[in-house]
Amino acid sequence: MLEALTIPPVPEGLAARIAARIDAKTKPPGSLGRIEDLAIALGLAQRRDDPEADPAELMIFAADHGIVAEGVSAWPAEVTAQMVLNFLGGGAAANVFARAAGVGVQVIDAGVASDLPVAPGLVRAGIRRGTRNAAAEDALSPAEVEAALEFGAALARDAAARGVRVIALGEMGIGNTSTAALLAHAVEGLPLAPLAGPGAGLDAPGVTRKIAILERAAARRPGRLAPLDALAAFGGFEIAAMAGALIGAASAGVAVLVDGYISTAAAMVALAARPEARASCLFAHRSHEPGHRLMLAHLGVDPLLDLDMRLGEGTGALLAVPIVRAAARMLAEMATFESAGVSGRGGA
Amino acid sequence: MLEALTIPPVPEGLAARIAARIDAKTKPPGSLGRIEDLAIALGLAQRRDDPEADPAELMIFAADHGIVAEGVSAWPAEVTAQMVLNFLGGGAAANVFARAAGVGVQVIDAGVASDLPVAPGLVRAGIRRGTRNAAAEDALSPAEVEAALEFGAALARDAAARGVRVIALGEMGIGNTSTAALLAHAVEGLPLAPLAGPGAGLDAPGVTRKIAILERAAARRPGRLAPLDALAAFGGFEIAAMAGALIGAASAGVAVLVDGYISTAAAMVALAARPEARASCLFAHRSHEPGHRLMLAHLGVDPLLDLDMRLGEGTGALLAVPIVRAAARMLAEMATFESAGVSGRGGA
Repeated sequence: MLEALTIPPVPEGLAARIAARIDAKTKPPGSLGRIEDLAIALGLAQRRDDPEADPAELMIFAADHGIVAEGVSAWPAEVTAQMVLNFLGGGAAANVFARAAGVGVQVIDAGVASDLPVAPGLVRAGIRRGTRNAAAEDALSPAEVEAALEFGAALARDAAARGVRVIALGEMGIGNTSTAALLAHAVEGLPLAPLAGPGAGLDAPGVTRKIAILERAAARRPGRLAPLDALAAFGGFEIAAMAGALIGAASAGVAVLVDGYISTAAAMVALAARPEARASCLFAHRSHEPGHRLMLAHLGVDPLLDLDMRLGEGTGALLAVPIVRAAARMLAEMATFESAGVSGRGGA
Repeated sequence: MLEALTIPPVPEGLAARIAARIDAKTKPPGSLGRIEDLAIALGLAQRRDDPEADPAELMIFAADHGIVAEGVSAWPAEVTAQMVLNFLGGGAAANVFARAAGVGVQVIDAGVASDLPVAPGLVRAGIRRGTRNAAAEDALSPAEVEAALEFGAALARDAAARGVRVIALGEMGIGNTSTAALLAHAVEGLPLAPLAGPGAGLDAPGVTRKIAILERAAARRPGRLAPLDALAAFGGFEIAAMAGALIGAASAGVAVLVDGYISTAAAMVALAARPEARASCLFAHRSHEPGHRLMLAHLGVDPLLDLDMRLGEGTGALLAVPIVRAAARMLAEMATFESAGVSGRGGA
């Protein structure tokens, strides 16, 4: 059971110890700005004085959403499965960015509706093929939610056992910006309309239609919901599995790089359930999807990158990996004033 | 002579051709945001349909500034030479970031005042040991300016001949934020006081003192100056060599990653002399040094990263290399809708 996973507390004095080490490095104090903060944050995430960025692994969780039947996406649902094959073939943006950044990729069918071939390298949850239509009924049963969370947590803990230090959360699921909006609304009470954006390419009338559909779905289960209840009400499999992966990673001292809109919705759900996992999260980028700003402001985080991206798949998290790597190696490898024989500033 | 270097024009239709290739990739159109713009910009910089990010090389130009005798820096001048030794030993932030990003490093004594040992891997200009004090007299002779520009251009063209595709411009020089402010003021007419910031760590009274010293220096050569005249009036060797490297890189179809405050001042000087080199420049990051905002706004550029860094050495440019790499490899390696068998959006 997920509740049985203990998330270790951040050791006393850890941030101050890392900060003191950084201040001895050959550079004006504070001159590496957010890279210094990031080195500390990585240490806190891993509960270690000597955090490491490598090996890092991208987990791409794919799943389908019954609500797509309502017309919430510009793309047909079968694209989810087609993109899973693209991930397995190495041709998607996430694959290219992962290779460029030296990051491994794990492709995960968390609940894809269309047929997928048996393929080496494809990890399958086998819980259900797609969620039910959340505009009409609960998307998942409580048992399905629990199974998806457990599945994600087990994957993250397995990665930790293989020595992975940073897990980047990626996803693919036609319709999943709708599910993410419903979750942020139900779990954190954020207003639904500004959370609903163009996703993978709706035009303005499409967004208006999407808002109406989401309002209908939300009205079925009004008010604030507990995180697991919200996942049951609205789905989706990939988001539940990502939330589970985040909690599993936190329990194992692995840092989690949160990607964009969907990934942040999963983090919101996970952190509502297990607030003590907060220190395990690093936020990679600000998506161009307008609702992401709302989520990030609510969480009080300022992500590392702002590159107008809105693709998902973990692409934003992957671009942040080299920055996390630079921070970790700065801490491990930079000379000190003493070791390099460099003079201090005047009068110091 | 530098004027003899021809900078090739950007081929007609190149941006549109690259944009069309990007739009065929398996992702919603525009969903990679600035990464798509960056792939196009890299193509324009290299004047190629198939731009490449690798190999990339950091050139760290080090030099001293006579104006340091006036008390413009919180650090003693000998730190410049000490940091050159730190670069050669691999212990500085730039070395660590370069290793993390898979970027080669060339350490260049463009005009360091203190003794430096003969060291393998240290490239020396041998023009002069430090500039004269620009608050009292011209920092460089016209011949010294010309020699520094030629030296930088030759280094860049040599890198191009070795196959380098991207040159990151880095620098080290106690006092060089003062020189950079004077150059941006003289060449582009930007107001001097807001260009003068804390540099490597002046306190507020120190900044006030620095402004007075810079105003005295600027009054010696008032009004707008031609770029080479400004370099003669105020220095410095590393900035002139970087400007030359930029022009040399542009002439050889090599992209230039401009780092922070000093590097941008060098780019301003180079682009004032050779505006056709503009397409060769990619701007890496926004420095925490307040005057950098002013420079970037004047150039009309929005750099890739904003991480509150103010170290120089090319550290911002190095953090941008993996992003440039991701953009280049996206263009080269991502599958198309057709090749991957992925459906287009509904109705398309």
